[in-house]
Order: sequence, then C-alpha cells, then structure tokens
Amino acid sequence: MSIQAPAALFDHDAVRRAVDATLAAYMNDQIRTAHHRGLPREPLHALSEFLGSGGKRIRPVLCVAGWQAGGGIGTPEPVLRAAASLEMFHASVLVHDDIIDASDTRRGHPTVHRQAGTAAAILIGDLALILADDLLHGAGLAPEQLTSVLRVANRLRIDTIYGQYLDLAHSGRPPADVAPAMAIVHHKTAKYTVEGPLLLGAALAGADPAVSGLLHAYGIPIGEAFQLRDDLLGIFGNPHETGKPALDDLREGKATVLMALALQQADPDQLHTLRRYVGDPKLTSAQAEQVRAVLVDTGARTAVENMIEQRRHSALSTLSTADLPAHIITALHSQAFSATARTT
Amino acid sequence: MSIQAPAALFDHDAVRRAVDATLAAYMNDQIRTAHHRGLPREPLHALSEFLGSGGKRIRPVLCVAGWQAGGGIGTPEPVLRAAASLEMFHASVLVHDDIIDASDTRRGHPTVHRQAGTAAAILIGDLALILADDLLHGAGLAPEQLTSVLRVANRLRIDTIYGQYLDLAHSGRPPADVAPAMAIVHHKTAKYTVEGPLLLGAALAGADPAVSGLLHAYGIPIGEAFQLRDDLLGIFGNPHETGKPALDDLREGKATVLMALALQQADPDQLHTLRRYVGDPKLTSAQAEQVRAVLVDTGARTAVENMIEQRRHSALSTLSTADLPAHIITALHSQAFSATARTT
Repeated sequence: MSIQAPAALFDHDAVRRAVDATLAAYMNDQIRTAHHRGLPREPLHALSEFLGSGGKRIRPVLCVAGWQAGGGIGTPEPVLRAAASLEMFHASVLVHDDIIDASDTRRGHPTVHRQAGTAAAILIGDLALILADDLLHGAGLAPEQLTSVLRVANRLRIDTIYGQYLDLAHSGRPPADVAPAMAIVHHKTAKYTVEGPLLLGAALAGADPAVSGLLHAYGIPIGEAFQLRDDLLGIFGNPHETGKPALDDLREGKATVLMALALQQADPDQLHTLRRYVGDPKLTSAQAEQVRAVLVDTGARTAVENMIEQRRHSALSTLSTADLPAHIITALHSQAFSATARTT
Repeated sequence: MSIQAPAALFDHDAVRRAVDATLAAYMNDQIRTAHHRGLPREPLHALSEFLGSGGKRIRPVLCVAGWQAGGGIGTPEPVLRAAASLEMFHASVLVHDDIIDASDTRRGHPTVHRQAGTAAAILIGDLALILADDLLHGAGLAPEQLTSVLRVANRLRIDTIYGQYLDLAHSGRPPADVAPAMAIVHHKTAKYTVEGPLLLGAALAGADPAVSGLLHAYGIPIGEAFQLRDDLLGIFGNPHETGKPALDDLREGKATVLMALALQQADPDQLHTLRRYVGDPKLTSAQAEQVRAVLVDTGARTAVENMIEQRRHSALSTLSTADLPAHIITALHSQAFSATARTT
C-alpha cells in the first residue's frame, strides 16, 4: 500500500525553527505562570537559556519525519509540541549527564551545574523531565492518540536511562570487550536519538506496523552510526566545532567501541599508554595526543569508520526499497549522511 | 447533591498493603523485562529496595480517599496503580533530595547515593520519575480519564519541584521572614503531599468541582500542618522513631516557620546562638541542645504547635459540614489527626 506524498519537500530547517519557537513559547508561558503565582523563575530561566543555547534538534526533526512517514501531513501544532517535548526531555538528560560526568562546558557554554550549582541543576533537570511530560500531555492530541504515543515515549525514556546507566557503569576503565560498548550505543543513541523519535512520530500518525518496521530497520543502524561518529568526534573532533572540550571523553574513560577495539589490537607498549592515560582526570593535551596515536595506529579509528559506513549502507538499502512518501525517503537519505558524516 | 456511601469503612492499612503489593508487582515486572532484554538490573534493584524500605504511603492513601470522595467505589486496580504512581514519584523526589541535602540515612537505612554513588543515584531518581509515568499511563484508565488525571498530576509535580527549589534557595542561612518558609510548606507539602493526591483521586472519579473544592479546603491546611509537624519532628523528634538523624535539619539550616519565628523573637544572646549554630554542617549534639532551648524559650515551638492546631481545626470544620460519603468524612477526620499529631 503506497502513501501519496504531499508536494512539499521535508524542510529540516523549517522544522528546527518551528521547534525552537514552540519551546520558546512554552517556556515563556511557564515563566509568566510562575510569576503570577509568586514562584521562583530562576530554574525556568536557567532551563530556557539552556534550551536556547543550540543543539541540532535531531530528535524533534526525526519525530516530524516519522509522523509524515506514517502518513501525517504537514506539521500541525500538536505534532510540533510532541516533537518539542523530545527536546525538553533531552535537556533533562543533558543537564543530569553533565553533573554525572562533571563536565564544565556544553555547547560552548558553562554547564548548568557550573552556573547554578549541582543541587539546583538536579532540580532543573527534574523540572525539564516533568515539563517534557506537560508539553506532551498538553499538546492537544486526541485521547486515543495520546495513549499510544505515551507507550512509545515511556519505552524511549526508560531505554535512555538504561543507556546512561551502562555508560556510567563502564566509565573510568573501559573494557576491551565490544559488547558493553555496543549495548550503550544501542540504547543510549540508536533507540533514544533515532529510532525512538521516528517511532514516536509514526505513533502520532497512527501508522501502519509496516511503516514502524521500516523506521526501525532504518533507525537502529543510523542511530548506531550516529553514536560511533560521536565517539570519534569526542576524541578527534575540533572543540571549536563540537562545543565540547577535546579531553573530556578521554579523561572520563568512556567505554566506547573505538576504545574496546584499540585495547584488543594494542601491542604491550600501546596497551600501557591506553591503561595509563585513559580515565585519568588530569590527562594533559600531550598525553591525549599519545592516546590518539594509539587509536590510529591500532587501526581502531579506521575500523570504527568502517562500522559507520556499513551501518549507513544498511540503512540506505532499507530506504531504497521502502514504501514511504518520496519526500520522506529524501529526507531520511539526507539525514543518514548528516548524522554520520558530521563534524559537530 | 449527596453521594451515597458504600457500607465499608475506609481501611487505611488495607490500602497501604495493596499499594505495596502493586509497587512490588510492577517492579518485579520491570526487573523481569530488563533481564530478558539483557539490561542492567542494578538500578531497578536499588529502587525496589528503596520502595520497600518503609514510608507512610500517605499520598496513595489520600489518592484513594479522593477517589472515593469523588464517588468512586472500592479500590479498583487502575485506581490502585495511579495511587501507587504517586509513591513512585515520591521515591524519585526523595532519592534526589537526599543527594541535594547530602543526607546519609533515610528511613533508618543508608541513602541511595551513599550506597550506589551520586551519579547512579541521579539516574535511579530519573528512572523512578519515568517509571511513575509508566505506572500511571499503563494503569488501565480510560483515555478521557487519563487526560484529566495527567493535568492534575503534572501540576502536582511542577509544584513539588518549585517547593524543593525554594527549600534549597533558602537553606543554609534561614531568614527571619515567615513568608518564604510558608511558601515552601505550601508547595512542597500542602499541595504535594495532601491536596494534590486528594485532587488526583477526585480526577480519577471524574468528581464534581464542588468535591474538589472541599478536598482543597481540607487538604491545604492539613498539608501545612503536616509539614509544620515535620519541621518540629526534624528537630525535636526521636531519631529512632523518625528514622532520620536528629542533627540533619539543623546542620542543613532549613528555612522553616519554626526557625523564622525564633529568629524574630530571639534576644541578642539567643540570636547569636541561632546564627552561630544553625546551618553549621559540623554542629554537635551539645550545640543542638542550645538551639533547641532557644526554639523553646522564644516561644517558637509553642507558636508552631498553635499553628498546627489552628489548621487542623480549620480542616475539621470544613469536614463537619462537607457533603461527602460518611466513611470518607471519618477517614479524613482520622487522617487529620495522624498527619498532624504523629511522632514519626
């Protein structure tokens, strides 16, 4: 069964701007309400500033793409608000993640806990999670539509926390085993960042299970590739482009596929370098260069580039035979490249 | 319009046991699912243990009372699950609150962050918040019923975070002004612990606005009295009964009505004692005794006892003329005493 595509192209930037406007309007409403009720506005201002400080809005964009893939037309207000609620949830995850990782900067700005203190940042993250609910519940969805969307949203959220927990559990002294690193990639990013938002959009449209199946087959490999790219950027990326200090991931000792492969392939000298420096919170730039050299020389960096390529290829083959509106095929095709070949 | 009361009495203990069983069954489901999916069970076990470690279950009990006040009969499964979700949300609040306050013990056990570490405890609190949603959304409510319940639930949650934020903002050096302390009491407890759960129950029953009005008129003063009692217990209570170290509130320098009144009435010597010791993280037992003496001698303790009495009186007068089922009047009457005259 083929769904007729509307004439319009899928305009990423327009969706991004509409999501930004939706978030800004929602936050202004909350700030006004708090003011009228004599409640503190500081946590709302902090959250508002964080939301406005950038971010690719990849989850809302994919949610709208999922909606249109499922037969939805255009970007009606309830869909935009549901999509924006993913970004609000993401703000909650990032604010708490920065506390967990003791990160000083995010998107080129001091992290929320560095500005407001850890205690306030815990509450600001909690508030963002609750407001993500409020935004979704008040999006104006039909009651039956809301029920099915909530099921998808909760699964996405639970998976995200498991991914974060796995990440934390393996940080500090990353294992040479690829399996735990892949489990993190799968839950923390493939499901959370790509597949989940697409499926949420499809649920909004009440899509056919076949459509959800396609979005899953596309979303998981692209999501994995997205995280594998992120892991490369965290170590080899340009901090001026990523907005993230170049030493954070190495100092933290993140359990990545990149690191697991390097640990497997390292000779004794290289292993010594990795075990000595990775996870050292005082790692210097010069030491980081030594680690980077090992990641390159062991072939780990190339292997991860190949894994990204394979996953993109798998997703693109899914698309090539997919029975989806043409403008969505185009949009997902381009998303496959921007998610996996990016530099920020 | 009078609602006929069912013959049964409102059985607090039976509701409490049913809520415990609901939470245990839900957590076991989650643990089984995580196991099947190869996901970490540690955060679920930690949360499960925390949920099973006691607590008065006052919010779920009041939620069921609100349901019956609104005309609901018995304690059907969906109502129990919605009520239990309040306890799950509460677990999230407490786990994060203990990090914020750097508390070592809760309910006589080491706090979650002392057992699992702060980073894991942030995620366990987040997970509890998300599972509170999942429990509520999957409670089996009718779609229209869910929509109205979510509105009440979100307001309750947002108010709770504001209350927590105000608490944090004024901690350390409590003000002599009663207003901020009363704002904390109002949002953190009156709305969150008493009025909100009652209104959530009423929303489950699709209650008449008149019923919600009565529950509000009863719930706010009883909730305020509950917190005023809590503040007294935090300083004068028996740690073996409260499960909470006797010095925590004084060391933290909580902004309470009790403290504000004492600061207002203190002579220069007494003021010196309060300003010197309250908020000192190294406060000794002997110094705490000096502070307690000031709280008694300034008349602050008696004044707070009087405020509790006034609020209970106001709530009981509301009940005396309330058009509610007789067994609910009885239940709320008894709740008014147990919430305000308790020792734990």
